[in-house]
Order: sequence, then structure tokens, then C-alpha cells
Amino acid sequence: MEDKAQIHEAIKVQGELVRKLKSEKANKEQIDEEVAKLLELKAQLGGDDGKHQFVLKTAKETLTGKYGEDSKLIYDLKDQGGELLSLRYDLTVPFARYLAMNKITNIKRYHIAKVYRRDNPAMTRGRYREFYQCDFDIAGQYDAMIPDAECLKIVHEILSELELGDFCIKVNDRRILDGMFAVCGVPIDKFRTICSTVDKLDKMAWADVKKEMVNEKGLSEEVADQIGEYVSMQGGMDLAERLLQDQKLSQSKQACAGLSDIKLLFSYLQLLQVTDKVVFDLSLARGLDYYTGVIYEAVLTQTGVGLGSTEAQQEAHAEDSVSVGSVAGGGRYDGLVGMFDPKGRKVPCVGVSIGIERIFSIMEQKAEASAEKVRTTEVQVMVVSAQKNLLQERLKLVSDLWNGGVKAEMMYKKNPKLLSQLQHCEEAGIPLVAILGEQELKDGVVKLRVVSTREEFDICRADLLAEIRRRTSEA
Amino acid sequence: MEDKAQIHEAIKVQGELVRKLKSEKANKEQIDEEVAKLLELKAQLGGDDGKHQFVLKTAKETLTGKYGEDSKLIYDLKDQGGELLSLRYDLTVPFARYLAMNKITNIKRYHIAKVYRRDNPAMTRGRYREFYQCDFDIAGQYDAMIPDAECLKIVHEILSELELGDFCIKVNDRRILDGMFAVCGVPIDKFRTICSTVDKLDKMAWADVKKEMVNEKGLSEEVADQIGEYVSMQGGMDLAERLLQDQKLSQSKQACAGLSDIKLLFSYLQLLQVTDKVVFDLSLARGLDYYTGVIYEAVLTQTGVGLGSTEAQQEAHAEDSVSVGSVAGGGRYDGLVGMFDPKGRKVPCVGVSIGIERIFSIMEQKAEASAEKVRTTEVQVMVVSAQKNLLQERLKLVSDLWNGGVKAEMMYKKNPKLLSQLQHCEEAGIPLVAILGEQELKDGVVKLRVVSTREEFDICRADLLAEIRRRTSEA
Repeated sequence: MEDKAQIHEAIKVQGELVRKLKSEKANKEQIDEEVAKLLELKAQLGGDDGKHQFVLKTAKETLTGKYGEDSKLIYDLKDQGGELLSLRYDLTVPFARYLAMNKITNIKRYHIAKVYRRDNPAMTRGRYREFYQCDFDIAGQYDAMIPDAECLKIVHEILSELELGDFCIKVNDRRILDGMFAVCGVPIDKFRTICSTVDKLDKMAWADVKKEMVNEKGLSEEVADQIGEYVSMQGGMDLAERLLQDQKLSQSKQACAGLSDIKLLFSYLQLLQVTDKVVFDLSLARGLDYYTGVIYEAVLTQTGVGLGSTEAQQEAHAEDSVSVGSVAGGGRYDGLVGMFDPKGRKVPCVGVSIGIERIFSIMEQKAEASAEKVRTTEVQVMVVSAQKNLLQERLKLVSDLWNGGVKAEMMYKKNPKLLSQLQHCEEAGIPLVAILGEQELKDGVVKLRVVSTREEFDICRADLLAEIRRRTSEA
Repeated sequence: MEDKAQIHEAIKVQGELVRKLKSEKANKEQIDEEVAKLLELKAQLGGDDGKHQFVLKTAKETLTGKYGEDSKLIYDLKDQGGELLSLRYDLTVPFARYLAMNKITNIKRYHIAKVYRRDNPAMTRGRYREFYQCDFDIAGQYDAMIPDAECLKIVHEILSELELGDFCIKVNDRRILDGMFAVCGVPIDKFRTICSTVDKLDKMAWADVKKEMVNEKGLSEEVADQIGEYVSMQGGMDLAERLLQDQKLSQSKQACAGLSDIKLLFSYLQLLQVTDKVVFDLSLARGLDYYTGVIYEAVLTQTGVGLGSTEAQQEAHAEDSVSVGSVAGGGRYDGLVGMFDPKGRKVPCVGVSIGIERIFSIMEQKAEASAEKVRTTEVQVMVVSAQKNLLQERLKLVSDLWNGGVKAEMMYKKNPKLLSQLQHCEEAGIPLVAILGEQELKDGVVKLRVVSTREEFDICRADLLAEIRRRTSEA
């Protein structure tokens, strides 16, 4: 068995290496080589060791034998009558489909729900295969750029209020990209794929992006260089004005329409007081096909700074500060609803997706790094007993507190020790303790203890609710 | 085309008939007959009319062609490597699995999420194939009946606060049922299936339940009659005391353990002030296999009363008042976590599931029946303009209000008409309007209009936030 333990350890290490290479998108040969080593190690364990590799999945077998005769209602995924089913990739396409199916021509709504991606998960960066998104969208035929500006205001407000560190919202327009590709000489059938390549500029250097354009996508060096010049440009309303005068770009009607809208957008953003964080950035492409106008992406520029105490943590954070990056993105998609309508009726839409899980992972890292304790419950008062045989009195008091709207709890034990009850309060960060003892019951009072200062006061039963409310509203 | 329209109408009517029969669980022959008629009607339309029957499903084709190169990340359900997958049936089994996988031995949590049942949907009764549940569970090794009592207190509190009408929480114990089956002479391998039959007593008369026991499940008439005597009993702590003295039932150790716990439970429920609604009911069985101790179910006893103004609505409600019935249920399941633990380590659990969708459908019916308007947004103030060319001023003001934490909105138009802006407030139930006109701008004020009374006041810009807060906190 000694050997087996060693092999298990080796499998663990090798498995981590493979995951690391995959998440870093190392070259295929290298990954294949290490996977082969991993399989070799696993083969050494032989069949008798299957138990150790037993992993429970949320599959059919999890649900069998638990529901008795109701089992017939379990929703199996195998027999969908031969339909090809997929899990939703984002909340935008389902939203557009919902509008079309229900013939809704204007609506403003937010939606928080799960989406699914067959991607390489990276837990520390808040990247999972199943994760939550929060979408906000405005659908309807309105005057140009007014709802678009509101979306950017909302992103600005969320990221400011959450205090995630400095951030920047990049803005561009699909029409400007298309116009730019056209005047640079990109063949029209290559617009979308070149767009995807430009989208990689936030992770790759221009030299590598150019290489992909020329070697893989078949552009000439000259065309690629022209694109390179444009996509290096960043600015504000002034850049939009300058590009409207650009000899080459102004030849494209599409580009001019996009540039005018960017100008208008910035004028609204000034009134909404958010231009400090918004940058017109011609390298912003966003890969999704459905965008038709303005596009944007919010990027954290300061994560990882000051976080993490050990060297290893700091290294991990340095990596994160690059890769967590984008926390929100969106744009205008005027054609998507029409794709689901039998008569092709269009409903213009603009929206934003907020990467909740990514934001949570940053907030968790921040909380870990700070001395501040993160509470996982909102309990305001713990009802405890100082002596034995006071369960009934605790139940009565906790019931009174619940009826009075106070968030209270007690231990589910007949005779818990006072010390362990008080310790629980310290650990869970519960601010107040209501202590019941024989003396207190005789006097018709409750001893109220403030956990942080360890002060204790006798409070008359009739005044207890008011006193707790006063003390908890202070905090 | 005249004919086709008639056929379409006939298909609609026939389709509704079939759905009605299915939802009423009519006999199979009758349903088959009507389905055959429906198919005949559909056949008359012929193949060329396929368009009209076109129904978009959330299938693969919905997602294709929208994500460009990211499409490779779409999570298809077909290639799970031959695994049998199911959608989760409830939140209890996934919770137990989560505890086992993460070796959690005590926790208290609520969870609101979707579950799936391959059942006949009935929209008006809030019964769907995909629906939300809200679960609350307490896991951990504690003294008897204390967490169980808290679960019942929570159900009592929720149903009281929501003002859904009168309700009743039935309580029983799996061990009492099993003991009762044993002393009545039910063979041990039939306990679970007889339990399922008893569970039907809320929808079927005793005579029919008995018939099923005898004809389908093979019990003797005598055994069935003995069960029939017990399951007709209802009471409180007194009934538990009486049954502890029952010559036959007291022979079962299991039944005695259950009865003692019911007594203890009622003593705690008295302290928690909820015994007014709790009934010890020996007919309560609950079909699921995983319960091991106390079980309970909350039933609305008064829905439909006074609701609905038309006769048809009243009829529909009368039907609902029977079938909406159960809105919450749960119990103790001490063995479920152990089923997922490789070493079989047990974690005792007790919990409750609240049928959110059913409760919502009742609340919607109540709201419809009352004159009260249900608001779908929380907007407090609408920023409107009295003349043209004031978009910039509206944007500035709405931004100030947002920054001040006020829920405000404006129309996404450059020059909306004053009347249509005010009408929107009336329709959406927005209580306040902030009106900007040239005169107001000159005077440095905003005209604040109270929608309900149509009163208008000029408020100094500097005092606006405070005035809005004062007026919205009043409501």
C-alpha cells in the first residue's frame, strides 16, 4: 500500500500540472505529453483501486431511490425526442427570444441567473463552467444613445459603490470597426474573424495579434499594419472628432455613423458625470456576433495591489490582476430580437452583463487580505442561558424577538454551556447577547451583553425590543 | 383560407379540451379519444401550414450563430460521455449531497432555486414543470425536536405575514406511520407503497383509498379498516398522549418514540406560540422515501373565498381552493446525508420546502381581485420636461437623483410630450414627478408633482433630495 500512496501523490501533482498548462493555454504538444504521463500513472493503480477515484456527479444515480413513487416525475435529459439541447450561454439571447415570443416592444429589466460555458475553469480567478451573471437591458425604439448612456452610468455606479479599486470602461462601436476594416482593405467575409483577433489585444501583444492576422487569417502585412495604427488609438470625444476628419476612415459611412454616436454618447456621459472612467478605445472588439452598435467593457486596473500577505499569494494575485480584468461588458444588439420573430420585427436593445462571480472572487480576496471579519449571517441577538433547565425560557424569549422582527437565534441544545454560547457569538460576529439566568427571571429583566466591548446591562423585559432595535440600528 | 381559419379555431378549442381533461386526470380512454380528434384536425391543415405551428424551443438552434468563435463554449447536453443526467427534482437531495461532499456537520441555510418535475402543468394553480422552491434546513446533531420546532415556527410566520388566508399545518411522524402499519399487520415490504396510498387521503375519499389498498396493493379488508381507523384521527398533544396509551399502537417501539417526540414538539410549539395552526394528523404521510421522523405539510384552507368578481372567476377559484392546497412541506431526514458519504457518516437534518410559485399564484389572484394596483417597478420619481430641448437638463437632474440614492427615471426621448410623460407616471404608479421647464430653471427650482393628488410645489434645487426622501419614506 506504501507504493499506492506514492502513486496517488504523483497523480495529484501531475494532475495539477496538466490543469495549470491547460489554464495557461500552453501549446498542445506539451499538454498532450503531460496528459500521457498522467494516464500512465493512473494505469499503474490498476482496476482494484477504482474506489479512490470515485467521484459523485450530479447525475441520474444521485436522484434515484430518494423519492419513492414520485420518482416518475424526475426530469431525465436523455429522452428529449432527439432534440439537440444546450445550456444557456448567456442571458442576452434568452432575453431577446423572450421579447420576440411575447411580442414585447419595450421593457427595462435586470436578471440574475446561471449561465454555462464549456471552458477551462479557474477557481481562483472566479471562472467556472456554471456561473451567475447579472444582466441589465433596455429594449425599445428610442432616441440615439440615451439608453446606452444609462447602461454605462449603471456600470460606473456599481463598480464605484463596490470599491473594487480603480477601473476603466472601454467604449467602441461595431460600425467603427467594420468601417475601419473596410477602408484598410479587409475582405468583407473576414470582418467577423478579424474582429475576434482584434479582441485578443487585451491579452496578447500587437506583434502576436498581427502574426495571427497574417499567418492564420490571410491578411497582407500592409493591411494588418493599417489596422494596427487604428487599434492603438485611445481617447475621448476629441478622438471621435479627429477620426471624423480622418481622410481614410471618413470615407466609410458606417464608421462616420459610429463616430457621431460616440460623440453624442460622450456628451451624455458628461452630464451623467462618468467620463472620468470612460475611454474610447479602438482596440475593443468583443467577440460576439450579435452586436450592431456601441460596445463596451469594464476592466479593473488595480486588483491585486496590496492584496495577499504571503509571497505565493502575492504572485497569485499578480496573475489575477491581469486575468480577472474584465468584470462587465455589453453593447447594442438591434438585430437579435428580429431573428426570433416569425415576421422579423426588430426591437432595438442595449444592455450590459456583470460578471458577479468574478466580482465576488475579488471581494473575497480583499476581505481575506483585510483584518475585517466577513459575517455570513445577519443574526443580531443570540439568546443564551446562564444555568441549566432554561430551554423553555429561551424558546419564549427567542419567539418574542422573532415576533418583534429581530434576527435572533439560540443553540439547539437543552443545556448548552454559557461559555460555548458566548464563544459562538464571538466567532459568528453576533453583536448582542441576551442572557437569561435565574436571577434575571426573578427580577423580570434580561442581561444584554455587547460582544465587542463585553459590557453588560440589565434591561427590563418590556424595554428589550426597543433597546435591541436602538443598538442594532446604530451599527 | 376561410376554411383554414375555422380549422385553426377548432384546433384551439380541442387543444384546450385535451389539456383540461389531462389536468383533471380524466380516464385514459376519454383523453385518447379527444387526442385522436385533435390529431385529425391537425392533419386537415396539411404540411404546407407548418409555419403556424412553429414553436421555438430553448434548443440548440436557438443558440447557434449568435456567439461567433465563442460558440465552442456552448454547453451541449448530448455528449456527457454516456452518463444519464437528470434535472434536480427538489433542493433537499442536492443539499444532502453538498453536506456529504464538503464534510459539513452543521449548518442552517435557505436556498431559493429552480427544480424540475415531469408533471402535467396547470398554470392557473401555479403548477409548472420548471418552478422555484424555497428551502430552509437545519443540519446537525442537536437535542430532539428543537430545530424541528423552529422549522414549523418559520412556516407559521411566513404564511401569517403573507396574509394568504387561513391555514393549517398538519404534523405526523414517519415512525408513527411505520409502527401503525406494523401493528395493523401490513407486511414490512409494503410500508412504503401503503404510505404513498395514505398520502392520497387529501385528494381522495377513504373509500377510494381503501379500494387501492385492497385491490391494487393486496391488503386484506380487515387490515385496511384498521389503518382507516387510525388515519381518521386528528388532534394535538392530547391525541399523542392518548395514543401512547393505545393498547395496539403502544406495542410498537417505533410508534412510541414518534408519539413521545410529537408530545415534546407540541410543548415547544406552545412556547413558540404557533399551536393555533398546528394539527397532529395521522393521515399525513408524504410520499418521499427519505423522511425518517417528523413530517409536516401546510395547507391553505380559505383560498378562493371572496376572490374573483365574475362567476367564471369564482368557479375557477373554487377549483383552486381545493387544488392549490399544500403550499409548504417537509420533515426530518436523518439518513440522506449518509447515503452520499463514502463512509456512511450521518448528519441529522430537518427542513421545509416552500412552494413559492403556488404562493405567488394565490397572491396574484388576490391582487387581481382587489382594486389595489400592483406596481412592477420601484421608481420613486420621474424626471420630466415641460418644453422642448431640455434633454440635457433632465439628464443632469436624473444623475443627481441617482447619485443621491433616489430611484428615478426619465423617458429615452429628446423631446417627449409633457402629457405622455405624466400619463406614464399614472400608469406605472410612480408617486412623484420632478418637472423641469424654462421658468423653473431660471428660478433655480424644480416643480414637484404628487401624482395621486396632482398637487404641485416649487422646490429649491438644493432642497430637492431631502424633500423627495421625506415624501417617499412617508408612503
